[in-house]
Amino acid sequence: MLYLVGLGLADETDITVKGLEVVKRAERVYLEAYTSILHVGKEKLESFYGRPVIVADREMVESSSDEILSGADKSDIAFLVVGDPFGATTHTDIVLRAKELAVPTKSIPNASILNAVGATGLQLYNFGQTVSMVFFTDNWRPASFYDRLRENASIGLHTLLLLDIKVKEQSLENMARGRKIYEPPRYMTVSQCAQQMLEIEAEKGEKVYDEDSLAIGCARVGADDQKFACGTLKELSGIELGPPLHSVVLLGKRAHELERDYIRLFAINEQTFDASWKKYHERQ
Amino acid sequence: MLYLVGLGLADETDITVKGLEVVKRAERVYLEAYTSILHVGKEKLESFYGRPVIVADREMVESSSDEILSGADKSDIAFLVVGDPFGATTHTDIVLRAKELAVPTKSIPNASILNAVGATGLQLYNFGQTVSMVFFTDNWRPASFYDRLRENASIGLHTLLLLDIKVKEQSLENMARGRKIYEPPRYMTVSQCAQQMLEIEAEKGEKVYDEDSLAIGCARVGADDQKFACGTLKELSGIELGPPLHSVVLLGKRAHELERDYIRLFAINEQTFDASWKKYHERQ
Repeated sequence: MLYLVGLGLADETDITVKGLEVVKRAERVYLEAYTSILHVGKEKLESFYGRPVIVADREMVESSSDEILSGADKSDIAFLVVGDPFGATTHTDIVLRAKELAVPTKSIPNASILNAVGATGLQLYNFGQTVSMVFFTDNWRPASFYDRLRENASIGLHTLLLLDIKVKEQSLENMARGRKIYEPPRYMTVSQCAQQMLEIEAEKGEKVYDEDSLAIGCARVGADDQKFACGTLKELSGIELGPPLHSVVLLGKRAHELERDYIRLFAINEQTFDASWKKYHERQ
Repeated sequence: MLYLVGLGLADETDITVKGLEVVKRAERVYLEAYTSILHVGKEKLESFYGRPVIVADREMVESSSDEILSGADKSDIAFLVVGDPFGATTHTDIVLRAKELAVPTKSIPNASILNAVGATGLQLYNFGQTVSMVFFTDNWRPASFYDRLRENASIGLHTLLLLDIKVKEQSLENMARGRKIYEPPRYMTVSQCAQQMLEIEAEKGEKVYDEDSLAIGCARVGADDQKFACGTLKELSGIELGPPLHSVVLLGKRAHELERDYIRLFAINEQTFDASWKKYHERQ
């Protein structure tokens, strides 16, 4: 059996009791380590599980899934995923491959950022599609997120923006020379995301949002030092929320007063919060 | 400290290791028992935790939250919620009340149906707002869900429909006579939901969906006997998926071929599935 086990969001104790039982008895334990991160390292997990953990990078999961699945028809293999096993595409791929090989699969759900963001006090019911924001480079500034934001805004919904993670990236020079030397990992911050959003709005000018639009910067959701900051995109452009992971929620126009009462607790500045709320969210 | 502890979706072992530690040391343990259910009863939880559990019905949570919070400034109170603590409105209420009383709060996330539905193979990124479907009666057939479905459909997104639960309901007669006698619990099924959807489409006639639209009936998501059935709304109107809880996903037009490959594994009938896919989802 291939078990996909969700690890939740913060540390080694966010695994479920059911998931931990699987990890303890599995023949091999893999950790998917390129779409998200926990706040603890492999060593901490290994000592908590009392088991060795094999780190599976993107290359391994995408090109060597048969290696991961080897023997799973006879014994149990655990494939650990930060958050919930079905938060990212790749994991349906490995399940489909398992089905081709007649390997049975089971998934053990856990919290993902998509539901844990409910801790902001915003109603999960009122979120539209989720959007990814990648690091812009000098000549690559993909703006498809803007279309998704416009669609959600057109029906008044909130949008969760998931921020880019770069792990095990090679510089062009190292790649060209075939040197397996990797750049230090990079994690996009709330302020970088807010800046890129405003940059694209300035370029497109369709007024999907502006400097005064309210958003919530989220850091380390689900961890003990989880932090939310609610403010205008201009305010968030300058905010510092500490270590990764970060994400951003852009408020939909249809935001409810009960949501306001809650998120106002995280306001960077209550005056600007109230002014933006009145401008964009108050029912006339 | 007031701890809101997510229990996950199926049984007593879906709690996280972190959540279980809180439950074991809390002064009192409450179980919110009216917006969702686990597949195991209070007794099973009590024996697993080694602790008594106080069942909190809607009345208690909404009118006696100060009783729940009593003493939480000095000791730890655990408030258990099926799924994730912030899946439903009520639990932001209790946190706001705690803040008024200067009681610190912490939430321990877990899987909710909103992310566990990713096990259908549909991309969670492509879901729009979530919709509730209530039991129709002879003279109460609220159709606001139809507007939400139209909005999501207008931008091509999937919609998760959460189905009604009736627990501790009184008959009109018992209510009038002040008798605390409750009707047996009722849980809406996939087939009832599909029938109500088609009933409202027939009435409104705006072609948000029709009998041939593809949807996925989901039963007991996250449990060992989790079951998915993918078919047309007409097929789902007649399907039997066993015990609760059920939910439904209406497919958005923008569904991707990778999603198709996965959900086709659950097709009630591959011919009708392929025909409906071709009609509504194939890129021209």
